[in-house]
Amino acid sequence: MKPEHKEEMKKRARNICLRVAYDGTDYCGFQRQKPPGRAVQNVLEEALEKIFGDSIELAAAGRTDAGVHALGQVVNFFTDGKIPLAKIPVAVNAVLPKDIVITHAFEADFSFSARHSAISKTYVYRVYRGERGNDGGVSLPSPFKGRFAWYVPRELNFCAMEEALALIRGEHDFSSFRASPKGSVNRRAAALIGSVRTIYRAELNFSPQDDLLTFTFHGSGFLYHMVRNIVGTVIDVGKGKLTTEDFRRIFQARDRNLASPTAPPQGLFLVAVEYADKKNNFESVNIAL
Amino acid sequence: MKPEHKEEMKKRARNICLRVAYDGTDYCGFQRQKPPGRAVQNVLEEALEKIFGDSIELAAAGRTDAGVHALGQVVNFFTDGKIPLAKIPVAVNAVLPKDIVITHAFEADFSFSARHSAISKTYVYRVYRGERGNDGGVSLPSPFKGRFAWYVPRELNFCAMEEALALIRGEHDFSSFRASPKGSVNRRAAALIGSVRTIYRAELNFSPQDDLLTFTFHGSGFLYHMVRNIVGTVIDVGKGKLTTEDFRRIFQARDRNLASPTAPPQGLFLVAVEYADKKNNFESVNIAL
Repeated sequence: MKPEHKEEMKKRARNICLRVAYDGTDYCGFQRQKPPGRAVQNVLEEALEKIFGDSIELAAAGRTDAGVHALGQVVNFFTDGKIPLAKIPVAVNAVLPKDIVITHAFEADFSFSARHSAISKTYVYRVYRGERGNDGGVSLPSPFKGRFAWYVPRELNFCAMEEALALIRGEHDFSSFRASPKGSVNRRAAALIGSVRTIYRAELNFSPQDDLLTFTFHGSGFLYHMVRNIVGTVIDVGKGKLTTEDFRRIFQARDRNLASPTAPPQGLFLVAVEYADKKNNFESVNIAL
Repeated sequence: MKPEHKEEMKKRARNICLRVAYDGTDYCGFQRQKPPGRAVQNVLEEALEKIFGDSIELAAAGRTDAGVHALGQVVNFFTDGKIPLAKIPVAVNAVLPKDIVITHAFEADFSFSARHSAISKTYVYRVYRGERGNDGGVSLPSPFKGRFAWYVPRELNFCAMEEALALIRGEHDFSSFRASPKGSVNRRAAALIGSVRTIYRAELNFSPQDDLLTFTFHGSGFLYHMVRNIVGTVIDVGKGKLTTEDFRRIFQARDRNLASPTAPPQGLFLVAVEYADKKNNFESVNIAL
């Protein structure tokens, strides 16, 4: 968006903020792409234009990658459309495909930006270890879970993974878990935003009933691929390929080349985004997976 | 399959029986189709031919419809392929797409047919009522659950639905819940197999945590669309559109035109198939959804 265009947008009558859930499997990520990529943003903007009647430019709190899901993505846009607030979710959902759902809408102050006003975000990453068939106890993938979780058919040491997670809590330089930016523009941008972030919460829960490991991360911000790189490395600790001490060394080295491969996208969910002004925070919505 | 061809098949060295789980969303049903339809059977047979090295003709216990899923479909086929039994699931899964998974394999007697030896089947149908957003308590669909459950955004009377389910237990004529066969061949076949079946178990469970209603049906056999027609009509009882007395009248009338519309396919799962000879029954596999 060109700056002058942005100023034009701000002359519109309303700044609408939406909370959005989506199954990211069939999208090339949140951010708008030129064809042939189909991004969540493209599909959302087209639906909103049908309902609001003007051209829509979305800003989003988190630019989720291809195949990554969201329970609580937050977006905002300026519009002159007159549809009452309470009717927005149902009206927009009626023109959206089934894998994208607007769960909340509110009128925001004109200074509010879903992206720049965010003070923290919560991500969840899900792992499952697979079912046991009758062929010597070999683990098997599930055709149902595999869409929303990473299949890791191995015994995992939960205590060791907990120890690794404890190391990342607090303020740290997360360079070891940041994907190398591609292209000089992105590299300059990456240098500008730095690599120090604060993790308020990093924990692991296990549900034996449905064989699901759930990693939860709440932090001031997340670098590109940061959650997936942390999970990939923590899982290697769980497998015994790395010790907790190895994890500590990798983390302190600030070198992406030492950490494990990036965990795949299908296990990752952007769960919630928090804002400083309480009135911009959505009550939590209980979308079970 | 022509009869003489069937006899040829029986001269092969092995009769292999498999238990299969699949996400039916992207298939036009289990049964082989001419292009352009992509059936589970086509994809399974192609994968098995790669591993076993001869041409494969599958027989399946249940011909699930387009969009219907399976946790425990059972199939069998004759082969001269030499792969050891214990290696079959992993080898075949390696060449199958992610939405079809072989969970068990065993060597069956030559008289065993996954289809004709079955003595009972268990189906599950899942319904969810949707999440509440902030727009006046209107219910919202979930982009995650909608793939494996029917979205019914309404308050439902559980007691009334339980009463309706109680009426179908036992041996009854299920004509009111049978889809009209299309074509004269199918009509003759339908007349031959009759419409009396025994339902051993018909029950409803509710999980408040994930807002899921689960109908379970265990019976001697099921007519075409029978589970989905029962669920469609029971849900109308839950909504209050029909009374339990209406349900009883519809059931006793043996007239499909009186019952409610067929519930959509995405909520239905073929869970298990049982055989008279205990050695042909798979231990139950705990594939959580």
